[in-house]
Amino acid sequence: MIIVMQRQATPAQVDGVVQYIRDNGLQEHVSRGAELTIIGAIGDENKLDLAHLEILPGVERATRIAKQYKIVARDTHPQGSVVNVRGIPVGGPQVQIIGGPCSVETQEQMNLSADAVAAAGCSMMRGGAFKPRTSPYAFQGLGVTGLEYFQKAAKRHNLPVVTELMDVRMLDTFMAYDVDVIQIGARNMQNFDLLKEVGRVNKPVILKRGLSATIAEWLMAAEYIAAGGNHNIIFCERGIRTFETAYRNVLDITAIPVLKRETHLPVIVDPSHAGGKAWMVPALAQAAVAAGADGLLIEMHPSPCDAWCDADQALTPEELKTLMGSLRAIAQAIGRHV
Amino acid sequence: MIIVMQRQATPAQVDGVVQYIRDNGLQEHVSRGAELTIIGAIGDENKLDLAHLEILPGVERATRIAKQYKIVARDTHPQGSVVNVRGIPVGGPQVQIIGGPCSVETQEQMNLSADAVAAAGCSMMRGGAFKPRTSPYAFQGLGVTGLEYFQKAAKRHNLPVVTELMDVRMLDTFMAYDVDVIQIGARNMQNFDLLKEVGRVNKPVILKRGLSATIAEWLMAAEYIAAGGNHNIIFCERGIRTFETAYRNVLDITAIPVLKRETHLPVIVDPSHAGGKAWMVPALAQAAVAAGADGLLIEMHPSPCDAWCDADQALTPEELKTLMGSLRAIAQAIGRHV
Amino acid sequence: MIIVMQRQATPAQVDGVVQYIRDNGLQEHVSRGAELTIIGAIGDENKLDLAHLEILPGVERATRIAKQYKIVARDTHPQGSVVNVRGIPVGGPQVQIIGGPCSVETQEQMNLSADAVAAAGCSMMRGGAFKPRTSPYAFQGLGVTGLEYFQKAAKRHNLPVVTELMDVRMLDTFMAYDVDVIQIGARNMQNFDLLKEVGRVNKPVILKRGLSATIAEWLMAAEYIAAGGNHNIIFCERGIRTFETAYRNVLDITAIPVLKRETHLPVIVDPSHAGGKAWMVPALAQAAVAAGADGLLIEMHPSPCDAWCDADQALTPEELKTLMGSLRAIAQAIGRHV
Amino acid sequence: MIIVMQRQATPAQVDGVVQYIRDNGLQEHVSRGAELTIIGAIGDENKLDLAHLEILPGVERATRIAKQYKIVARDTHPQGSVVNVRGIPVGGPQVQIIGGPCSVETQEQMNLSADAVAAAGCSMMRGGAFKPRTSPYAFQGLGVTGLEYFQKAAKRHNLPVVTELMDVRMLDTFMAYDVDVIQIGARNMQNFDLLKEVGRVNKPVILKRGLSATIAEWLMAAEYIAAGGNHNIIFCERGIRTFETAYRNVLDITAIPVLKRETHLPVIVDPSHAGGKAWMVPALAQAAVAAGADGLLIEMHPSPCDAWCDADQALTPEELKTLMGSLRAIAQAIGRHV
Repeated sequence: MIIVMQRQATPAQVDGVVQYIRDNGLQEHVSRGAELTIIGAIGDENKLDLAHLEILPGVERATRIAKQYKIVARDTHPQGSVVNVRGIPVGGPQVQIIGGPCSVETQEQMNLSADAVAAAGCSMMRGGAFKPRTSPYAFQGLGVTGLEYFQKAAKRHNLPVVTELMDVRMLDTFMAYDVDVIQIGARNMQNFDLLKEVGRVNKPVILKRGLSATIAEWLMAAEYIAAGGNHNIIFCERGIRTFETAYRNVLDITAIPVLKRETHLPVIVDPSHAGGKAWMVPALAQAAVAAGADGLLIEMHPSPCDAWCDADQALTPEELKTLMGSLRAIAQAIGRHV
Repeated sequence: MIIVMQRQATPAQVDGVVQYIRDNGLQEHVSRGAELTIIGAIGDENKLDLAHLEILPGVERATRIAKQYKIVARDTHPQGSVVNVRGIPVGGPQVQIIGGPCSVETQEQMNLSADAVAAAGCSMMRGGAFKPRTSPYAFQGLGVTGLEYFQKAAKRHNLPVVTELMDVRMLDTFMAYDVDVIQIGARNMQNFDLLKEVGRVNKPVILKRGLSATIAEWLMAAEYIAAGGNHNIIFCERGIRTFETAYRNVLDITAIPVLKRETHLPVIVDPSHAGGKAWMVPALAQAAVAAGADGLLIEMHPSPCDAWCDADQALTPEELKTLMGSLRAIAQAIGRHV
Repeated sequence: MIIVMQRQATPAQVDGVVQYIRDNGLQEHVSRGAELTIIGAIGDENKLDLAHLEILPGVERATRIAKQYKIVARDTHPQGSVVNVRGIPVGGPQVQIIGGPCSVETQEQMNLSADAVAAAGCSMMRGGAFKPRTSPYAFQGLGVTGLEYFQKAAKRHNLPVVTELMDVRMLDTFMAYDVDVIQIGARNMQNFDLLKEVGRVNKPVILKRGLSATIAEWLMAAEYIAAGGNHNIIFCERGIRTFETAYRNVLDITAIPVLKRETHLPVIVDPSHAGGKAWMVPALAQAAVAAGADGLLIEMHPSPCDAWCDADQALTPEELKTLMGSLRAIAQAIGRHV
Repeated sequence: MIIVMQRQATPAQVDGVVQYIRDNGLQEHVSRGAELTIIGAIGDENKLDLAHLEILPGVERATRIAKQYKIVARDTHPQGSVVNVRGIPVGGPQVQIIGGPCSVETQEQMNLSADAVAAAGCSMMRGGAFKPRTSPYAFQGLGVTGLEYFQKAAKRHNLPVVTELMDVRMLDTFMAYDVDVIQIGARNMQNFDLLKEVGRVNKPVILKRGLSATIAEWLMAAEYIAAGGNHNIIFCERGIRTFETAYRNVLDITAIPVLKRETHLPVIVDPSHAGGKAWMVPALAQAAVAAGADGLLIEMHPSPCDAWCDADQALTPEELKTLMGSLRAIAQAIGRHV
């Protein structure tokens, strides 16, 4: 911790800070400059309370030096870790493409989706049975019936299923229905009770970034899951909220190299929700792979015109197939494969 | 709904949109300009799917006209509604000041807090037993024991208690401990399952604005609660996330007059979390009252230096008392009282 | 300057940083913790280049400690300074209200405006002769003719004139027409050549905050003016750009107490541009005075329906008069006057 | 223009709007729904004033339908246009890489830079002689001497020179020194007088996006240049300001496909300023090419450790060469070349 004293701080105030540091079991290091005095606190920073330091007399501000995330930090696992989803490695040289509709609608729609996803060469399938909707009057998902349709469809092609969990009370059901990857949505990134619960199970978790979550908050949300014992975490960038209104969200491509440096865990991207329009998906998906993403979550619907939600952002099966071609070429250009 | 056709849209494409509108039971109104054709869909907009319209051939974009919130809209209740908290009216001429510590720590701390809150002339008391913390390693609140301490302390002054609910599974406990006002925190503003549950009980709810929630999303979150049958909703502006780093959040004072126009429900402000520093609280609290807020949620601690969390944003009992004086004067200046 | 070394930094890398610090004439202060080594550089921080330090081998990051603004910093002038506009003090106990239309249109419109501004009790008058417009096809202001109309109208009531300068080449004209206060608009807050030029004249300058300028950048922009010799600077908060779309900008009320702490110069607020609608102005204006603003810049038009620009945000003369009443009461409530 | 009437609007108020529309030479189209009345104004929207409409009695809000940019709109030039820089086409199948240092320092540094830029296979060279700096005390560029050094160095490899113009008064000098591409920096994107002046010369202009400029504002800024007669405009995305503090700016990759759809003009990307760190540049540069950018502006310095500004974001000559290899492979993967 670094404590910057106010310009007019007295020696007694400096002593007060020193005493506080010692009382908490750390060592101080006082640097007296011509204009300012700076105090470094050496030792376990977590024993100090930033807010307490900032209200000690004479203190201008205090700043943490150590990062607060531990288990998910790359420091603790420099070579990068791979999350195993039923034998499919996320985080290795292969870029995993996860395709499927926004929401589960009918058995037939899911069967057609699974066929298209498999035919395009995707390695996993996505689909929502529980849907977070802005309006209470909008379709909220088929619920448990949706999980059934999904599993039945996905099994025909041996595709692992990826689906969103919104409510802690449904976790047992997700386990019973053998969901392969639990997705935590953007709005729940800091639903701490939900994070704690998925931290207690042994299932891969896709943790989407909150709409306005900083990288540091996102890493701390993952730390909540990891602290419970579940280290099978996959980060998913899905666009952030900014001032721009020409598209739904701004895909934060910079998050990819930055997360790769900060954490050993894999990072995937959802280009469909970021832009919000199907015609933007190819450019964003290509950019994500070129920037080093370990996978993509792409919306596809057998017939977008009939989709029950987000019809405008789903690719057709044909468009997905074409996009897979470009993604393969780009992955190769940077020494990976799809 | 207004549908703007692309410049080069064909008559057949216009017909396609018209057919879609009619198929959904609405009427069309086609305006052909020199450059653009615009189609209005007259009737119940909720029968139309915006995303579907936007992928019909020839459509440039579609825009909703009607607001999606109904119960909470001022249109439905033009004169403004008052939420009754054990006889204390929120939303009337009196500005309600709710004081208390960030978190419940000990029985003694809560007793001292209740004494100070009552002495300053506040009408309700706040305090957190369950704390949403960015880090899994930080103090997470005393839990149920905290509710006990809180109730015991508040009862001595007959102060209604306001406390945050984070987990749906704790709602019964909140009812059993007779919490007077359930607070939904910023991070849970779109925790839809939680909103649905508090919509089913008959308790006043303070709904804090999400860090980057738009006014429209906030109103829709309240609509989730209202749709369940609970109309005792109090909006609480607590600062939004922007690019500025000199303070924690930006208190969005404009939200006050805008909400007052859009909804009939009361609006309060939390100046403590917005700025994040005790020395900013008086200016922000005064501004909020001057802008028309129906109440304030102010952090105070009997001894901020010893506070277990957010020590730097809590007022001392003395500072709270002084601030109450200014707030009284400002309320009077605009024809209200504290 | 504080330099945090990477966890795996070698002793030789620490030495490299120490050498760099000494080579630039500063002294180092090395703190070796269990996990991290931190180096403080004591002396004139401006001699060090942050970017250079950050690319030295083994460096994790470097952070400035000293503030980069000097002349405008409160440290250099603790008691607060007053800017004198033809005898009217900005920054003292009186809150100065500056009223007038968005743009100068005709002599008659300016005469009526000046009459209304004076009748309402405002102390200065605003109006734009040169208008920054998003579209090249929109009305760009009357130019020099506008300055003439403005001066003629204002003189009848001895009101100092406040008007915006957009182009360095017009500064001589502004001096010739004896403009009393030069306004630098939000879009030009970092037009450094313009700042340098107004720094060379002896005229009060209102420096509006850029749409997404941080407090630190704003202070540095003022420092540009001050470094040229002109210390008559008035900060004007006018709303910042955020994700919210329900109103034009978010008035950043927190900027008032924060600026008051960081700089000795006066701070005023423009509630008209912030919200963008006349009906929002009273709430925002009242909040600004309650939060400690030294003045307000309020748009008023003798007949808003006929205004050539921003018709929807101008108050009528009657509305301005009513608002002045509330502002007087609020100012008194906090020990000031209007 | 679409005008939505308030729910309680009277027939007389609807008539008032209709009259206003007719008075301005447009035709109305009234749609009366069960809940709301909507009025379409058919004809030349620019004859209507949005703000005027919004203050007519009974009006809830008005919305433009037509886009305000004309010359730069893709509608007017569907096949995409190519900007010619001394025979080098920007906007065709070749992706143009523009390399060079942040600022011009010495003749030797520029010669070494030019050698490295040419050796890496870049087609143009960048370098700043006039530098917009946040602090008035920082190095402000070599000025005219810098232009001389730059031209001398670039000529040895016949590289067109790209450099930033900050002040209208320097435009003649830029013409005299035969600058090949005038760059307008982010902070000057809405310096309208500067835009008007570069609109009068016949030189390619790179228009950088303002830090918080919307796509629509950016297009309007280009329209200012185009309206003056200069259609040789190249858009340059360079990162936007958001809430994220882990990196300088967020590269808005979505802007590429969106601009490509809205305008016929070429779009390039500056990955160096966006992230602010050299180690982020490869991922961002690769993403930009994969997303369809027509070129890149990349900072390179013969010896970053000695750079006078932004040392931490410059690539070394070796790193630039390596990056060019990846960019070539990615360009090929999507059917283009570098």
